[in-house]
Amino acid sequence: MTPATIPQGFRDTNRIFEEEVVGKGDFGALAQVYTANATILPPGAEMITGIDSIEKFWMQAAVALGVTSLRLHSLSIEVLGDTAYEIGRADINRAQADPLIVKYVVIWKQEGGSWKWHVDIWNPVS
Amino acid sequence: MTPATIPQGFRDTNRIFEEEVVGKGDFGALAQVYTANATILPPGAEMITGIDSIEKFWMQAAVALGVTSLRLHSLSIEVLGDTAYEIGRADINRAQADPLIVKYVVIWKQEGGSWKWHVDIWNPVS
Repeated sequence: MTPATIPQGFRDTNRIFEEEVVGKGDFGALAQVYTANATILPPGAEMITGIDSIEKFWMQAAVALGVTSLRLHSLSIEVLGDTAYEIGRADINRAQADPLIVKYVVIWKQEGGSWKWHVDIWNPVS
Repeated sequence: MTPATIPQGFRDTNRIFEEEVVGKGDFGALAQVYTANATILPPGAEMITGIDSIEKFWMQAAVALGVTSLRLHSLSIEVLGDTAYEIGRADINRAQADPLIVKYVVIWKQEGGSWKWHVDIWNPVS
C-alpha cells in the first residue's frame, strides 16, 4: 500500500503521536498509540516492553533530545488480518540542535477497535 | 512463539546468513536469505531495496566493520500466513574491535518454498 492509500485508522494513530504526545506533551496519550504490551527497540538502548515503561522512555527521550515537533511519513503499509507492518520516515525538530531524520518499521495490531503500534524500531538516516 | 519453538525453516535461513554469508564470505548466498525485492534499513544510512544492492551493502559493511563471525538469536516469531515477523538479537565479533550487540526486527516472506527476510532493520544495544 502506497502513501496515498494508507487507511484512515493508521493515519489517526500517527496524528495522536504527532499532535497529542509530541505537540502537547501529553504522554498519557501514548496509551492510544501503543498496545498495552508493545515493545520498542530504541537505538543505543535495550528493548523496552509495556506501555508504562514506554511512557517513561518517551518522556525522558523528548526532554533529552529537546524535541519540539515531529512528523511521521508512512512509506508503505501491508495489512495482514488484525496485524500490519509499516515502513516509514520521521522528521524530528529539536530545540537548539539540527533536525533528526529517522526511518522506522512498526508492527501494528488492532486493540480495542483501533490500530496501534505493537513493535516499534527505528534508526537514524545519517 | 518463543525461542524454543522457532520453526526449522526460519532457523535454516538464519544459519545460511551466519555460516555461508558471514562465516565463509559467500555474499551470493544472500539470495537464499533475502527476498528478491527485500528492503534493509541500516543505521546511519538510507534504506536499500533489491537483492543486488543488499549484496553490495553487506560486502562493504563486512569489510568496514571487520566482521569475523555473527550469531543470530530469535527472541520471538509470529507467523501470519506467508508473512511473519521476528524480534531478535545479533552478536557480532570483529577483528581488532570490541564485539557489537544489535537488536533487530525482520519481516519474513515465503519465496520459492523458503522463508526469507523481506524487511530488515536493526540498531545497536549501546
